[in-house]
Amino acid sequence: MDAHSAGRPSQADALAARYGRAAIPAAGPWNDTLALLLDHKSTRAFLPTALPTGTLETLIAAAQSAPTSSNLQTWSVVTVTDPAVRAKLAAIAGGQKHIEQCPLFLVWLADVSRLGRIADAEARTLEGMPYLETFLVASIDAALAAQNAVVAAESLGLLTVYIGALRNDVEEVARLLDLPPGAVGVFGMCVGYADPAVPTEVKPRLPQAAVLHHGTYRIGDETAQRAAYDVELGAFSKRNEMQADTWTERVLARIATLRALRGRDLLKAKLRALGFPLK
Amino acid sequence: MDAHSAGRPSQADALAARYGRAAIPAAGPWNDTLALLLDHKSTRAFLPTALPTGTLETLIAAAQSAPTSSNLQTWSVVTVTDPAVRAKLAAIAGGQKHIEQCPLFLVWLADVSRLGRIADAEARTLEGMPYLETFLVASIDAALAAQNAVVAAESLGLLTVYIGALRNDVEEVARLLDLPPGAVGVFGMCVGYADPAVPTEVKPRLPQAAVLHHGTYRIGDETAQRAAYDVELGAFSKRNEMQADTWTERVLARIATLRALRGRDLLKAKLRALGFPLK
Repeated sequence: MDAHSAGRPSQADALAARYGRAAIPAAGPWNDTLALLLDHKSTRAFLPTALPTGTLETLIAAAQSAPTSSNLQTWSVVTVTDPAVRAKLAAIAGGQKHIEQCPLFLVWLADVSRLGRIADAEARTLEGMPYLETFLVASIDAALAAQNAVVAAESLGLLTVYIGALRNDVEEVARLLDLPPGAVGVFGMCVGYADPAVPTEVKPRLPQAAVLHHGTYRIGDETAQRAAYDVELGAFSKRNEMQADTWTERVLARIATLRALRGRDLLKAKLRALGFPLK
Repeated sequence: MDAHSAGRPSQADALAARYGRAAIPAAGPWNDTLALLLDHKSTRAFLPTALPTGTLETLIAAAQSAPTSSNLQTWSVVTVTDPAVRAKLAAIAGGQKHIEQCPLFLVWLADVSRLGRIADAEARTLEGMPYLETFLVASIDAALAAQNAVVAAESLGLLTVYIGALRNDVEEVARLLDLPPGAVGVFGMCVGYADPAVPTEVKPRLPQAAVLHHGTYRIGDETAQRAAYDVELGAFSKRNEMQADTWTERVLARIATLRALRGRDLLKAKLRALGFPLK
């Protein structure tokens, strides 16, 4: 079952794929795990092939092994198999058909409802519950857990894709999954074997200098960095997505208009309705 | 440099350590990466030993290889080496001396300031910027990146600990690191070699049945689950921390009182002051 070292690129190739040949960072230590991490790709094209028995439980064990703030474990996860519910989730996400097609679909929850039930059972009040901080802890907990599941999945030869677009309507997601107050789907995740007919390629990122600061935050030559990255990502897009949008164009398309939020401008009000006062 | 498969436990032992012998989930597939993930431990006791050349860049390459929402890459990271700044960060975090002692200290930022600079350069307005959704995207991006860095560090024989307590005063952290508006430290992270004089042990988690739901969220026998987990975690605490708090006691101590938030009840106001309107 160990696909984690099979066919992984060399360090030089992995760094070149991740940053483009013009922006390769200094080579440091290297091993099979790093090769696996650097070689990460997402996919939206899944085979219907079922996962081996125990795969779900293995991914959850990896997820629960991630750090969690003060060991509060303020996350949960729901698997969705019902095709009708999958279709509704795909519609919420703006028509992402892979939600209906992948063999395993997970909805990761920021979940403080469990803490609420403890407080009820112990006849205590949780003064910290209604704060933004507590929602943030739960969302970060869910993200750390989910990312461990991604790494675990890739070690098994599976690919994934996060579905942030479930946040287009967190209230409807909560209704579909019968979530208690204090639980909210922060993102979904498709898991499965990638369709080999749809090539996947490592997506280049910004150079390290753009994200890594030493001592204090010093803005470097972002104009030059962005121009080079626009070329790199434009070429990636052309090879993989039959369009040639630059990063700049992608960023602006994603965040310049309220319409592009696809309802997520209402997230705060909907979170409040789901039991997160966000004080 | 590959410590990722050296001395890792067997699947049976790894699952027993993570869940306790009474709550071991069904065994699924297994490999060296899963052994690494399941064997995660945090530490607060670091040797002063410097990290090999290139380690930081390798951790950042792993972090940048994590998924990021719409490839927006709304995170950055600051390394802190100045002892005076380390001391101030340790004080903000309630006196966590390991922040001063670890060879590498990272502050992970939710950072939409880069997008703001793109918009300025392109003479565009980003209507999506002021929303809670955008802060959440950036916080989740930072968490996914950071967790990849944790996995990478552990593959190199290093241990880490997240420092959520930097959120006790995000404004002071921003001042110390000279962050631009639209960037905030969501958590810190100590990285280094664990002091072998201070034993570390895998921390047991709740049983899978407590966090994994099928189809809809169904609350199982949480009373029995929690009673068993209280025994498990109490024994862990006694072995490792010279106290015997149960999970229930820990949860209540952490979230029952406003005082335990240590200033994080002001997080929303401070985020607004840092350029996150959270609409």
